[in-house]
Amino acid sequence: MDTSVSVLGLGAMGSALAHVLLVRGHPVTVWNRTPDKARDLVAEGAVLAGTPADAVAAGELVLLSLTDYDAVQAVLGTVADAVPGRVVVNLTTGAPDRAEQVADWARRVGADYLDGVVQAGPEQLGGPEATLLYSGSERAFVAHRRTLEQLGTTHHLGPDAGQACRYDLALLGLWYEAELAYLNALALVGGADNTALDAFATFAGRQLSHVSRATAETAREVRERRYPRGPASLVEHAPVLEQLSRLRSAAGLHHTQLVHLHEAVRRRIDRGHGTEGLTGVIEELAVPTRGAPAR
Amino acid sequence: MDTSVSVLGLGAMGSALAHVLLVRGHPVTVWNRTPDKARDLVAEGAVLAGTPADAVAAGELVLLSLTDYDAVQAVLGTVADAVPGRVVVNLTTGAPDRAEQVADWARRVGADYLDGVVQAGPEQLGGPEATLLYSGSERAFVAHRRTLEQLGTTHHLGPDAGQACRYDLALLGLWYEAELAYLNALALVGGADNTALDAFATFAGRQLSHVSRATAETAREVRERRYPRGPASLVEHAPVLEQLSRLRSAAGLHHTQLVHLHEAVRRRIDRGHGTEGLTGVIEELAVPTRGAPAR
Ligand SMILES: NC(=O)c1ccc[n+]([C@@H]2O[C@H](COP(=O)([O-])OP(=O)(O)OC[C@H]3O[C@@H](n4cnc5c(N)ncnc54)[C@H](OP(=O)(O)O)[C@@H]3O)[C@@H](O)[C@H]2O)c1
Ligand SMILES: NC(=O)c1ccc[n+]([C@@H]2O[C@H](COP(=O)([O-])OP(=O)(O)OC[C@H]3O[C@@H](n4cnc5c(N)ncnc54)[C@H](OP(=O)(O)O)[C@@H]3O)[C@@H](O)[C@H]2O)c1
Repeated sequence: MDTSVSVLGLGAMGSALAHVLLVRGHPVTVWNRTPDKARDLVAEGAVLAGTPADAVAAGELVLLSLTDYDAVQAVLGTVADAVPGRVVVNLTTGAPDRAEQVADWARRVGADYLDGVVQAGPEQLGGPEATLLYSGSERAFVAHRRTLEQLGTTHHLGPDAGQACRYDLALLGLWYEAELAYLNALALVGGADNTALDAFATFAGRQLSHVSRATAETAREVRERRYPRGPASLVEHAPVLEQLSRLRSAAGLHHTQLVHLHEAVRRRIDRGHGTEGLTGVIEELAVPTRGAPAR
Repeated sequence: MDTSVSVLGLGAMGSALAHVLLVRGHPVTVWNRTPDKARDLVAEGAVLAGTPADAVAAGELVLLSLTDYDAVQAVLGTVADAVPGRVVVNLTTGAPDRAEQVADWARRVGADYLDGVVQAGPEQLGGPEATLLYSGSERAFVAHRRTLEQLGTTHHLGPDAGQACRYDLALLGLWYEAELAYLNALALVGGADNTALDAFATFAGRQLSHVSRATAETAREVRERRYPRGPASLVEHAPVLEQLSRLRSAAGLHHTQLVHLHEAVRRRIDRGHGTEGLTGVIEELAVPTRGAPAR
């Protein structure tokens, strides 16, 4: 608990990060563009730095939690001299390519860099339900693992600095698409009375939990590129998807997603995989114009 | 257990239906286009009818389990004289409009009609994990509920004969779209090593279970047309969706679904609902050219 930590950015998340580390006994230095926001943390024992460079100089471990990568790059642009030998951990949400840009910058100025994402709200931070994903410097992760574990359940996803952001966005996308799938289903049964709609919600929850319980197995199929038939084969899925697309279209609902899946299933059948299960369509998900398969 | 039941169609599902009813002590008459398939059931005590009309004449309750609605209409076309006063329960999977056509036919010829779908495989039939959804004649459902409950967990969804098929297809669509969402997420993180991919599968399972646990609450929001903010407001969702669409597009992956959702979110914001949660986009899911909202 004696690793000194600096936290740059005291929004809702940065303040929670600094608070948890103070409570766990770390020496914490904070900096925020608007210094007012540091007041409570200073009362809890944090040291307020006057500039980002002062904050970086004060901490072995430097955490950033800012609005976006523009803010990150603006702030880091002022600390290049203070940064050599430091470990910079950027917990700002963003796109993988931006994380890789910051990693390049860190390499040039001689800092170890970890890019991270927080999969939780500020109020969950410090508890096991808060998951934090990191990627980038393995050395930095190993050296500071125990400190980082104070913040929540911790995973390192490999040396590619963009991977944590990629995971974060992929999981967000999954949430959005699953929500949209459910809203589409609700819109389709729309006219139902209350009892029938409640029954539908129960069935829908069960249907989604079939998918959620099979995520590990599906991932294994993808990794091994072996796609067992499962509940039905692609040849059996194809007419159902066609019927579904027609029904959704007749109901005046958007259905390009189902058309897209149907096309992928048909391509897969044409390539001789008709007896396999649905997972194999992952090999057809790349947009055709790009040529190369997604994987 | 003394209701006489006839089962027309002895595929995998029809045979299982007849078997369960025999085991529970019902007098069962069977008919199949290819009579051979009745052999085991006859050995179990079923009576084999020579024609569909003979089968219909023999049972108070007439179950149909055929490949599709073309087969259903072909078979029912030959039994109009035998059918008055019978209750016809069609457990063939299909589109809601076809179910409504059969309901019209039943009204014309003087039969009570229930349309049903089996949400289970034949091997689950007779157990509580098998869910069977019915819609159509409430009188028929009430009269034969106890017999139908022999087949599994039983729900009646209202008088509209198409509703059971609509539910079935909506739930199937949900499964397809949720699977596709997960495959899209896997394709996005594609290059990951095995440990990282297994971690991703775990996170993805958790993410989907957030959606599956909230289905009842989301349905209530839709019913009441009140859309509380939830984890984030539409104004907060919009830039994330834009970023996600860009990332998926840059990875060469299909992303019309996210673009579509982003557009729906933007329309909703423009209409003054920016502080509400995601569920409200259901009011924007109708395809614009159709004019009328989905609900
Ligand atoms: N809050 C959550 O529930 C949550 C959950 C997961 C991930 N995250 C991510 O965590 C990060 C921080 O979130 P937050 O909720 O704490 O955000 P926030 O409350 O909006 O705080 C943003 C922070 O960034 C600073 N900032 C913005 N632009 C700056 C610039 N150009 N130069 C210097 N400082 C700048 C702000 O300083 P001022 O105080 O001077 O404005 C503030 O300290 C974001 O990337 C967010 O996506 C948040
Ligand atoms: N099997 C499942 O896991 C499952 C699950 C849920 C729902 N369902 C639904 O249940 C229904 C039956 O499924 P199944 O698996 O039992 O199908 P199946 O094994 O393919 O059996 C189809 C039945 O329909 C008969 N048939 C087809 N066309 C006919 C025609 N023109 N005239 C007379 N009879 C005709 C067949 O007779 P022949 O024997 O003479 O060919 C056979 O008895 C389908 O709608 C299916 O979608 C099945």
